[in-house]
Amino acid sequence: MSVVKSTLSDEDRGVVGNALQGALVDLVDLSLVAKQVHWNVIGPRFRSIHLQLDEVVAIARTHTDTVAERASAIGVSPDGRAATVAKTSGITEVQDGWIKDGEVVRTMVSALGAVIGRMRERITATEKPDPVSQDILIGLTADLEKHRWMFQAEAHH
Amino acid sequence: MSVVKSTLSDEDRGVVGNALQGALVDLVDLSLVAKQVHWNVIGPRFRSIHLQLDEVVAIARTHTDTVAERASAIGVSPDGRAATVAKTSGITEVQDGWIKDGEVVRTMVSALGAVIGRMRERITATEKPDPVSQDILIGLTADLEKHRWMFQAEAHH
Amino acid sequence: MSVVKSTLSDEDRGVVGNALQGALVDLVDLSLVAKQVHWNVIGPRFRSIHLQLDEVVAIARTHTDTVAERASAIGVSPDGRAATVAKTSGITEVQDGWIKDGEVVRTMVSALGAVIGRMRERITATEKPDPVSQDILIGLTADLEKHRWMFQAEAHH
Amino acid sequence: MSVVKSTLSDEDRGVVGNALQGALVDLVDLSLVAKQVHWNVIGPRFRSIHLQLDEVVAIARTHTDTVAERASAIGVSPDGRAATVAKTSGITEVQDGWIKDGEVVRTMVSALGAVIGRMRERITATEKPDPVSQDILIGLTADLEKHRWMFQAEAHH
Amino acid sequence: MSVVKSTLSDEDRGVVGNALQGALVDLVDLSLVAKQVHWNVIGPRFRSIHLQLDEVVAIARTHTDTVAERASAIGVSPDGRAATVAKTSGITEVQDGWIKDGEVVRTMVSALGAVIGRMRERITATEKPDPVSQDILIGLTADLEKHRWMFQAEAHH
Amino acid sequence: MSVVKSTLSDEDRGVVGNALQGALVDLVDLSLVAKQVHWNVIGPRFRSIHLQLDEVVAIARTHTDTVAERASAIGVSPDGRAATVAKTSGITEVQDGWIKDGEVVRTMVSALGAVIGRMRERITATEKPDPVSQDILIGLTADLEKHRWMFQAEAHH
Amino acid sequence: MSVVKSTLSDEDRGVVGNALQGALVDLVDLSLVAKQVHWNVIGPRFRSIHLQLDEVVAIARTHTDTVAERASAIGVSPDGRAATVAKTSGITEVQDGWIKDGEVVRTMVSALGAVIGRMRERITATEKPDPVSQDILIGLTADLEKHRWMFQAEAHH
Amino acid sequence: MSVVKSTLSDEDRGVVGNALQGALVDLVDLSLVAKQVHWNVIGPRFRSIHLQLDEVVAIARTHTDTVAERASAIGVSPDGRAATVAKTSGITEVQDGWIKDGEVVRTMVSALGAVIGRMRERITATEKPDPVSQDILIGLTADLEKHRWMFQAEAHH
Amino acid sequence: MSVVKSTLSDEDRGVVGNALQGALVDLVDLSLVAKQVHWNVIGPRFRSIHLQLDEVVAIARTHTDTVAERASAIGVSPDGRAATVAKTSGITEVQDGWIKDGEVVRTMVSALGAVIGRMRERITATEKPDPVSQDILIGLTADLEKHRWMFQAEAHH
Amino acid sequence: MSVVKSTLSDEDRGVVGNALQGALVDLVDLSLVAKQVHWNVIGPRFRSIHLQLDEVVAIARTHTDTVAERASAIGVSPDGRAATVAKTSGITEVQDGWIKDGEVVRTMVSALGAVIGRMRERITATEKPDPVSQDILIGLTADLEKHRWMFQAEAHH
Amino acid sequence: MSVVKSTLSDEDRGVVGNALQGALVDLVDLSLVAKQVHWNVIGPRFRSIHLQLDEVVAIARTHTDTVAERASAIGVSPDGRAATVAKTSGITEVQDGWIKDGEVVRTMVSALGAVIGRMRERITATEKPDPVSQDILIGLTADLEKHRWMFQAEAHH
Amino acid sequence: MSVVKSTLSDEDRGVVGNALQGALVDLVDLSLVAKQVHWNVIGPRFRSIHLQLDEVVAIARTHTDTVAERASAIGVSPDGRAATVAKTSGITEVQDGWIKDGEVVRTMVSALGAVIGRMRERITATEKPDPVSQDILIGLTADLEKHRWMFQAEAHH
Repeated sequence: MSVVKSTLSDEDRGVVGNALQGALVDLVDLSLVAKQVHWNVIGPRFRSIHLQLDEVVAIARTHTDTVAERASAIGVSPDGRAATVAKTSGITEVQDGWIKDGEVVRTMVSALGAVIGRMRERITATEKPDPVSQDILIGLTADLEKHRWMFQAEAHH
Repeated sequence: MSVVKSTLSDEDRGVVGNALQGALVDLVDLSLVAKQVHWNVIGPRFRSIHLQLDEVVAIARTHTDTVAERASAIGVSPDGRAATVAKTSGITEVQDGWIKDGEVVRTMVSALGAVIGRMRERITATEKPDPVSQDILIGLTADLEKHRWMFQAEAHH
Repeated sequence: MSVVKSTLSDEDRGVVGNALQGALVDLVDLSLVAKQVHWNVIGPRFRSIHLQLDEVVAIARTHTDTVAERASAIGVSPDGRAATVAKTSGITEVQDGWIKDGEVVRTMVSALGAVIGRMRERITATEKPDPVSQDILIGLTADLEKHRWMFQAEAHH
Repeated sequence: MSVVKSTLSDEDRGVVGNALQGALVDLVDLSLVAKQVHWNVIGPRFRSIHLQLDEVVAIARTHTDTVAERASAIGVSPDGRAATVAKTSGITEVQDGWIKDGEVVRTMVSALGAVIGRMRERITATEKPDPVSQDILIGLTADLEKHRWMFQAEAHH
Repeated sequence: MSVVKSTLSDEDRGVVGNALQGALVDLVDLSLVAKQVHWNVIGPRFRSIHLQLDEVVAIARTHTDTVAERASAIGVSPDGRAATVAKTSGITEVQDGWIKDGEVVRTMVSALGAVIGRMRERITATEKPDPVSQDILIGLTADLEKHRWMFQAEAHH
Repeated sequence: MSVVKSTLSDEDRGVVGNALQGALVDLVDLSLVAKQVHWNVIGPRFRSIHLQLDEVVAIARTHTDTVAERASAIGVSPDGRAATVAKTSGITEVQDGWIKDGEVVRTMVSALGAVIGRMRERITATEKPDPVSQDILIGLTADLEKHRWMFQAEAHH
Repeated sequence: MSVVKSTLSDEDRGVVGNALQGALVDLVDLSLVAKQVHWNVIGPRFRSIHLQLDEVVAIARTHTDTVAERASAIGVSPDGRAATVAKTSGITEVQDGWIKDGEVVRTMVSALGAVIGRMRERITATEKPDPVSQDILIGLTADLEKHRWMFQAEAHH
Repeated sequence: MSVVKSTLSDEDRGVVGNALQGALVDLVDLSLVAKQVHWNVIGPRFRSIHLQLDEVVAIARTHTDTVAERASAIGVSPDGRAATVAKTSGITEVQDGWIKDGEVVRTMVSALGAVIGRMRERITATEKPDPVSQDILIGLTADLEKHRWMFQAEAHH
Repeated sequence: MSVVKSTLSDEDRGVVGNALQGALVDLVDLSLVAKQVHWNVIGPRFRSIHLQLDEVVAIARTHTDTVAERASAIGVSPDGRAATVAKTSGITEVQDGWIKDGEVVRTMVSALGAVIGRMRERITATEKPDPVSQDILIGLTADLEKHRWMFQAEAHH
Repeated sequence: MSVVKSTLSDEDRGVVGNALQGALVDLVDLSLVAKQVHWNVIGPRFRSIHLQLDEVVAIARTHTDTVAERASAIGVSPDGRAATVAKTSGITEVQDGWIKDGEVVRTMVSALGAVIGRMRERITATEKPDPVSQDILIGLTADLEKHRWMFQAEAHH
Repeated sequence: MSVVKSTLSDEDRGVVGNALQGALVDLVDLSLVAKQVHWNVIGPRFRSIHLQLDEVVAIARTHTDTVAERASAIGVSPDGRAATVAKTSGITEVQDGWIKDGEVVRTMVSALGAVIGRMRERITATEKPDPVSQDILIGLTADLEKHRWMFQAEAHH
Repeated sequence: MSVVKSTLSDEDRGVVGNALQGALVDLVDLSLVAKQVHWNVIGPRFRSIHLQLDEVVAIARTHTDTVAERASAIGVSPDGRAATVAKTSGITEVQDGWIKDGEVVRTMVSALGAVIGRMRERITATEKPDPVSQDILIGLTADLEKHRWMFQAEAHH
């Protein structure tokens, strides 16, 4: 009972739909995690990291929307509800409470690394069935890898 | 042991911290719910409601940030993680899958109504202990009630 | 047969609805009066007062919209029609024809004073039944009192 | 005792002054009527019409100012006070209370139609005595007829 | 007698040139068709669809320019003249006269579907000979499929 | 049977409708012709003319929209489809392929001249039946004649 | 021998060319006169009049350009050189040296009056030979008369 | 003898005037102190703190203006002269000369803390006599407490 | 123990440092004085002078920052604290309380005159030791002398 | 008798006043000359030179204002009236009528050269009496010499 | 001792790192070469080419940054120092001194051609090891080929 | 065979030309060095310094352009090619590879110091032959010294 008719075959739509749904959940969680540490970071580097995290939130939100609407565009209903995110995100839950600046940097390197690893698999998986969706995943991975580099550079002593 | 020293007494901080933490969770969930139906709405009124929902997302995100940073400002660590939102939100979980436009309108009237009811209680609870936090809650409730009116007006036949 | 369901009790809604309807009429008339003298002012101070009046028009229009939509938000249908304004405004009708600059200043001090007096009563009346509406009335009164000060300062010789 | 000396003869100024005064009243009332239904519209098309009406308000206000200042420029004192509008407007008074979206559309088609009919007569009346004022009336009539078309298109089933 | 020397071999240039010329014609026609129904749509959903169509026109025009200049960049003279568009467009000619809103939605789903099908073939055809041109076609197809989803969502009852 | 009721008599509407439909077709074609040579121009003056042509495209598109919506506003359905343009445009079809800069200038002088000649007739034809439409035609002719002057100035050796 | 070929007959071009050349000179001089008193005004109203004069300069410069390029567009070479302006302007030369604010206001009322009188004649003269040029003269006269009203209003005691 | 007539009783005006005058002095000094350390800060965190301090200056200046004009609006002449600030500010004078980044952070935590403590008392004092002034004090205290949190977070090791 | 190493010799740095420190204090006080009379001015010219004073504040603040950071750049710690300003400013303290518009104009002519006199000496003193600092002092003196002219022009009767 | 009191001695004011008055006249004429050829240029390079000339007009107008207000600031009444410009400008009068593009370039090289030569003398003359005025003349000469270089580069074959 | 850990294998990182380092050097040199001829171009087409070259500089700088930061993101330290650029750029060194406009066009066609040839190889080399880096190279090659077309078009006689 | 004729004598042009050519090379290299460390910086202060360096790049690029075009304006062909920069820059070559944040700060203090020392000599050298060029060198030295102060402040422990 497809509401939105896809240009893809059923099989291709299944593969691509899974990749996009997974990306959507990871990106929503990335935005929530980045906001959580944006509010709770403490330490001498507070201000710099506080601002840096809002840039991560901004790109995570933008790409979330693109990925979710791409799912709709190929006829797959996207699911970005809180419970779905809590259950299926690829990011390890962050601690609650205040968090030291150095710890925030390590948290973000790890969270971005987890998401990037899964995005790389999605890029491979979607290449044949849908180069249009793949192009979107490639573009957002470039942004994620750029932000991981910057947190890695900051983690160096 | 308090990282951020509060201008409030311990007791007042407890009351106000609860109110702000509750508001934070409700507002994060409101933004996730509004995005969920923004992506999944179908029916003749698709475009109008699709755009209207992004206005709800925008105000929910802005007020989330204000409320969370207000909690930090009074020395209470805010918690906006996915699992916390999934567990403690005041909004009934929305259905997954495509959702008809009329149903989206009813969903939003109900979600906004649930959040507003709790906000009204928080306005009362914070009046004495912290008029500064109360003023923030009053301001965001005005926005939520305005949006509830607009969805109610649309729900009329 | 309430089209828009209110979060307020019937009694509170009555009180707050009256305050908002009164504010709405006063603000519409304030914008019409300020435009009337904006077009008809003559005298050496023409340009300065002509521009100053458009600032009054701008804030009167903005607050009119906020107040009218607040009435809708609490389930009370707002009435800003010309006849209603002509009949129930708190501002004494201004003279027709060209009007000297000094006279314009006195007219605005008096018109703003009349509206402010009524707004102060509405702030008191809405405090208990609806702090959200009260906050809106407080905010617009600050603007009106600022403009009254400026016209008073100009009236001094 | 003409405060502002006109480039027009007394007779021409009389004809043109009447046309501009009439246009001014119709345009003020159009802005008040459009705001009234902007606040009171209900029904599934609420949001679309709510926004559309603010565009009518915007052009009505802009042309009001142009027309009133044109009257001043030819030496005729303009009158845009609430009572004058209530008494001499060409628009039938709209009902109070909530108003269904379809009814709003019909109201606007009729209100715009009434104003346009009178503007057409003013275009004819001012052609000889003052092509400068006529050009202003022609320009605003184009805007009014564009908006009437759009409401008419929406009124079609 | 190539005016603009290509980085591509003659054979590759032929294949890619055909793909780009076809895309150019489809996109010009898409912009003309969208404007045609933008002006002629009638029915209760007039305003929403009228605005939505201008977004299609905007993306069609932007991509038309990119595709045409890409043809020039690989040394192939682009042809976007009215007669060429009328003869070789992949979109079925739309009816003349006023057109009901529901019919407009169906027309756009079908027009976008026809163009997307041909774009998908062009993506495949250009992959080997010119990944630079392919990337442009992938990017614009994402936009077209997003708009087709939105019209499909609106077509649902 | 008229979807959009006109303020004009049937006869006047016929005359004005013809003028506007003709103007619409000429302007759409002008934008297509200007884009065609914008992409295909070669020679030392390439960049200057390439940019100049996009200014012609911009004014042609803006006036196209105004003219088409004016037709709708007087109750005449506008027709801007590719085949209609190809068949009824007043501009001689331009050559395909690369085109030397001097030749582009001559092409534009001639295309603009053809359109201007027909616009002048439409200005005369619409004066009595509809000064509102005439005013629109006068305004766009000023723009066209300005651009023809600039291309003529460039054609001079 | 004509560099820029006109759409007008030789006779019409002569009449319209004279009107435009006269308007050009008057407008250049108006901008120079307004700047002269902008720099030399003294007295309690200095700042208000200083700013007001720059608005006159701005509209004079904008209309100068439009009028001069309109002359070029009909094939008549415009002449805006200092000596031509000094010799043929319709504005009486203003005094040198510091000038009291009240005197500035009277100077501007008189300068604008002189220019407006000549513009009115040009509107009449161009009506038949070229409604396009006439429309430009009508539009700028509206601006000049608006500014004259404002200086007249200020001249009133 | 009152130049600006107040809506408040003499007694209320006295209380509120004191609160506003005190707030004005504290805010002027806060802006001077923040600028002083903005120019003199040294150490590895120089740039981040240098920028952060300008945000404090910006909000201090904005609120200073609001508070001073509020005093005028209730008929109390505000005093923000250097000597008055030097004598009555609630902030302990900062050291002269270069100042290490960590010391700057401590200085700001302490300066903001001193001002906030006094503002809290003013919020209590103005509640009954003038809710309009109180609302202004509540709003600026929210900003001050937000900035104190951020400096506190940075002070943590 | 110079924190910031200067490009100037110790002697030159002493001379230039004195000039900049003096300029800094004068400019801070100028901004405080201008704000003081901005809030306290009364009389018919209130609005014009109120706005004019904020332009003085804006340039005083901008140049203060430039001068203070120039001192830092040559290795001299700047001192802009309230007590330092109160003690060493070149401007005579202004009266407290409401102040008539004419008196405000005279106050500003005198305050600007005092600062300009000292700036002229600093321009001379810094010419040899540091043309870079001198250039900054020359630039800001141009702004101060422009504002003094405007207040002088207004002081003329 | 001096309306605006100068910081300069009478002798210095005389020298500097002459320099500024001369600069003012040259710059007004430069703007008129550049506009004259902006309207009358013909030939293949029309568009490029037409645009370039408006950049000269823009800088000439900006510097005119600065120079004239600098004269006022030192107590010398500036004279920028048409007759004064026609009589005392340092630029040779340009020919009337259409003018070929190459000739325009030569005209501008020569006009800019004449003005620059006189500006160089004014820089020398004002160095001792008023470094503030000199700095303004140095700054505008940099702009004039930049534009002369660009016209010279274009004059090269 | 990798500072930044890569998502790529060592071998893939080596291949992609070489491609990005090569691209970085070519793009830095392209920006330097384009600036060099931007400053030194002479001849009738000076202005048009002078402006066109700054567009090349802008895209070269933007892509340089993207490519260098992409290298960092995959854990490869980028090298854009002057000596490295001088030694390893793919662009033949341009002549010093003034350079005729036609020669500038040929220089740019050749410089762009050299860079594009090497970019095409890098697109092929990075396809398998890193589609994310490849996508960046594809995107910038599209821009380079567009600019080469425009210079080629200008080179045609 | 001077392409661009100078207002300076041959001798003066030689001196000034050398100063400008030297400044040009130093500024190009400063922009390349700042970009190099912008990409390679690592350590806890990464983000703050990364952003700070882009401000240095921005001012270096802006002043480079001004200086190079000033050389052209006095008839001296500027040379900013990679090899010229590599050979004649006043900045010691920076190391390749990742670079610790503290080391970056020291590198920039030293690079800016080297350039400033040479700029001071150029200011002295150009004073007599060309105050216009000197003024440009003075202005850019102010910017360079401001940035050196900020890096010095950050270098302090």
